[in-house]
Amino acid sequence: MNDQDKQDKHKARQQKIKEKVDARIAAAKDDKGLLLVITGNGKGKSTAGFGVVTRSVGHGLKAAVCQFIKGTWDCGERNLLEQHGVPFYVMKTGFTWETQNKETDMAAAEIVWQEAKKLLNDESINTVLLDELTYMLKYNYLDIDDVLETIANRPEGQHVVVTGRAAHRRLIEIADTVSEVQSIKHAFEAGIKVQKGIDW
Amino acid sequence: MNDQDKQDKHKARQQKIKEKVDARIAAAKDDKGLLLVITGNGKGKSTAGFGVVTRSVGHGLKAAVCQFIKGTWDCGERNLLEQHGVPFYVMKTGFTWETQNKETDMAAAEIVWQEAKKLLNDESINTVLLDELTYMLKYNYLDIDDVLETIANRPEGQHVVVTGRAAHRRLIEIADTVSEVQSIKHAFEAGIKVQKGIDW
Repeated sequence: MNDQDKQDKHKARQQKIKEKVDARIAAAKDDKGLLLVITGNGKGKSTAGFGVVTRSVGHGLKAAVCQFIKGTWDCGERNLLEQHGVPFYVMKTGFTWETQNKETDMAAAEIVWQEAKKLLNDESINTVLLDELTYMLKYNYLDIDDVLETIANRPEGQHVVVTGRAAHRRLIEIADTVSEVQSIKHAFEAGIKVQKGIDW
Repeated sequence: MNDQDKQDKHKARQQKIKEKVDARIAAAKDDKGLLLVITGNGKGKSTAGFGVVTRSVGHGLKAAVCQFIKGTWDCGERNLLEQHGVPFYVMKTGFTWETQNKETDMAAAEIVWQEAKKLLNDESINTVLLDELTYMLKYNYLDIDDVLETIANRPEGQHVVVTGRAAHRRLIEIADTVSEVQSIKHAFEAGIKVQKGIDW
């Protein structure tokens, strides 16, 4: 398939996804699951995502977390949220650009994505956090059509939060709310090392 | 005191606060409490602040929350975090620009600020969230010199997170990390009402 064909195909699929999203909005009387995208280069994207999960769980809602890219280190949010029955599905390879093995990385991404798909088909789950998913789309580790269609076809009332830099424009297009976190300044620049409880 | 005198006085006090902050950074070998400011017009500022608290508590650290401006409605984060021993000090008057009674509002702000000061002098507290504090400075509900000096003189390893729109430049100046959350789009604009678990 040449580039033009590819583009046409994506455009047609995006159109279908958009129609599905618009139908969801039209059908919603009051309550409607939102797609919230938190992107940009600044600090606080994942943290905001976990804040939404905390909020949901605090309301007695069921939430689940899929972490793309994250390594296997100790995760404060996980320690706490797992106590409240929040399942975590975490990509095991750490920062993918460190490993430089695209095949292994894609396989690792796919495993987490398959878990995400189950959650995005499970109407008992109120809130799904897809932490750092944006990179999987940016580097074509996951099929964007599959990801967007799955999100668009999720259960009516389910909220989805996607975090990570450089969110794909097609994802932004179907999102209800998009925030961009910009870095005004960052402690690293002043030579301060990452701090437990703040940075991880 | 005329405006020029006021400005000079603030400048002198800001200089002293900056010196204190610089001394903190210089003294820090490895670990150092950070001042993180999350500002801007987009969605996710408070949520990120609560994410930091969740993270801290998940690491077994002690955290506390002061909410300026917030009303008395059901708060998902509070429901969950209080179960983990996180104390909440909440301003009782709701959104202050609704009440339009500056005197009452200032008194309400002051009560929460006095609790905040105790936390900012207590080295057993690792992380303090000052949610929506920026507005208190913007509208001069609290004395900015008092606020900045208290933050600058807090215990060595204590993290402070301040959230809210339009953070004062003097606060930004002494912060370690500042993120600005910008709104790219927002569900409200599409006529979708606020959603439990996402918006509150």
